[in-house]
Amino acid sequence: MESTRALRYYEHGVAGDVLVLEEVPLSRPAEGQVLLKVLATPVNPSDLGQVAGKYAILKPRPAVAGNEGLGEVMETGPGVDGLKSGDWVRLPAAAGTWRGHLVAAADGLLAVPRDLPLEQAAMAFVNPPTAWRMLFDFVDLEAGEWILQNAATSAVGRYVIQLARLNGWKTFNVVRSERGATAVREAGGDAVAVEGDDLTQAVAKHAGDRPPRLALNSVGGESAIALSRVMAYGGTLVTFGGMTGNPIRFPTRQLIFNDLRLRGFWVTRWLEEASARDVRAMYESLFDLIRRGDLSAPVAATYSLEDYKKALEHANQPGRGGKVLFVPDP
Amino acid sequence: MESTRALRYYEHGVAGDVLVLEEVPLSRPAEGQVLLKVLATPVNPSDLGQVAGKYAILKPRPAVAGNEGLGEVMETGPGVDGLKSGDWVRLPAAAGTWRGHLVAAADGLLAVPRDLPLEQAAMAFVNPPTAWRMLFDFVDLEAGEWILQNAATSAVGRYVIQLARLNGWKTFNVVRSERGATAVREAGGDAVAVEGDDLTQAVAKHAGDRPPRLALNSVGGESAIALSRVMAYGGTLVTFGGMTGNPIRFPTRQLIFNDLRLRGFWVTRWLEEASARDVRAMYESLFDLIRRGDLSAPVAATYSLEDYKKALEHANQPGRGGKVLFVPDP
Repeated sequence: MESTRALRYYEHGVAGDVLVLEEVPLSRPAEGQVLLKVLATPVNPSDLGQVAGKYAILKPRPAVAGNEGLGEVMETGPGVDGLKSGDWVRLPAAAGTWRGHLVAAADGLLAVPRDLPLEQAAMAFVNPPTAWRMLFDFVDLEAGEWILQNAATSAVGRYVIQLARLNGWKTFNVVRSERGATAVREAGGDAVAVEGDDLTQAVAKHAGDRPPRLALNSVGGESAIALSRVMAYGGTLVTFGGMTGNPIRFPTRQLIFNDLRLRGFWVTRWLEEASARDVRAMYESLFDLIRRGDLSAPVAATYSLEDYKKALEHANQPGRGGKVLFVPDP
Repeated sequence: MESTRALRYYEHGVAGDVLVLEEVPLSRPAEGQVLLKVLATPVNPSDLGQVAGKYAILKPRPAVAGNEGLGEVMETGPGVDGLKSGDWVRLPAAAGTWRGHLVAAADGLLAVPRDLPLEQAAMAFVNPPTAWRMLFDFVDLEAGEWILQNAATSAVGRYVIQLARLNGWKTFNVVRSERGATAVREAGGDAVAVEGDDLTQAVAKHAGDRPPRLALNSVGGESAIALSRVMAYGGTLVTFGGMTGNPIRFPTRQLIFNDLRLRGFWVTRWLEEASARDVRAMYESLFDLIRRGDLSAPVAATYSLEDYKKALEHANQPGRGGKVLFVPDP
């Protein structure tokens, strides 16, 4: 194999416009390297933002799109002893993941148990850690406490609902539509409101004398501010996404008089800065939960690389109810 | 003395419109009480906000305006042994301070050394603690670090400049006008920019490889966001005032990718929650600095209660260059 197919872009722009499916060269795995086959790789919003040139990390172009996925070791180069043919690993992001195969340094690759559901494992590396860290690293939550979140039907939103239940916390979920409300209830959300509802009243009704001390925001604008208004004194609102939204008033009053704390979370940075041990410990816990079926996100559909235009169209449909993944060679 | 003059309001509104100078009854100090003469009491923005009904604490009306000031003990009731005639104390806020005399419980009154400059002592209870706590309670600053602030010509802004110098920190000050820039330089500010200047360039020029980890905001809106854009990764922006400003975009990118932390500070809450020992220790330090002349704010003018309309007009003048105080009986 001297080349592989990959979705590349030469200029920033809308992914459906700028991506092209091309043969790219593939070397044989050299000393310390492995040849990986891409088993599945999801379409995340941040991937599209990166292709559009609107993300904090941009790749040198021409670049292969995609940053998350599951790979299988096909061949190991000389001097690789931690991995063998057939092993599953997390795909490294730098070379791009929307491709058939890639060659990578074996060192530092995260091994993934082969008994996990393949598609769920392919989505395990960005959204589940995001949900996990946001629930554990900002507020020391007690049993029975309420967590508030918007965009609750998103993959992170669903992982938050699942992790909250497993840890004895309750979720108050804000969604955009009645359909979203139904989906969140089915996913185990404890309370739901639709954007624009009287959130103060709804949260008071459910959370009563225990207003949320933690809120998770991936919408921004008025939605973020609406969350902050119903939080407990001294509560923390963590933003991890959402580049849009109408301009808002700077939340002076809530900062001063309600001791509101605004923070942000970026899983890429966390993974870079955390110790290898902390990273491994977290993934081991996440893999266990995924194996048991306690942690999962719905899959809207899988596509071959050839059908990338359909895949991207699907990924852009609001309310599609799940992730879109590429499965390069089904 | 069976009554005293006081500036009262029956309805919320613009202070100049709704305040009336009236005789209000004054009882003799009963068991555990003292009669205080008001020596000086400043006009703070929060006082005007409270009269307007736009503050987190509103007094039951009719209410006497004013919340800060210096009093002298005129008479002590039975059972008072910590205070004697002639002692100086911090005026309690609840009964309002824009008045000639008041009767208050002796217990919990903060004694003030008589060797302090009277007007400076009258302004010692709100703005200096605000500056102090913001500099010490949010970021563990190292020698030579830069602190960024807007509204640098305000009383808090000046105290921040003075406290920073005393502690070996540098201040980067944002002001609204060239006149403000001159005032800040004269007050010892290390660097100055005018709102609308290219702050990124200016901060880079001065702070270079040590971008500010602490910024103090009492303006809000675009000014607050401008500060946040030039801060260090993981920096904390503390808001302590500023109800106005144009709507802004929710700072999603800075929260996520620069680990921006937005906090608030309200000195009233701090004073309520801190231990009596911590409060006393802080005021002792502040009084020492005021006595030595290391900590001071300019006084624009003093007025009798009778001239309250002139006083309020003066207090509302932008760029007045100092505090307006009432000195009820000069």
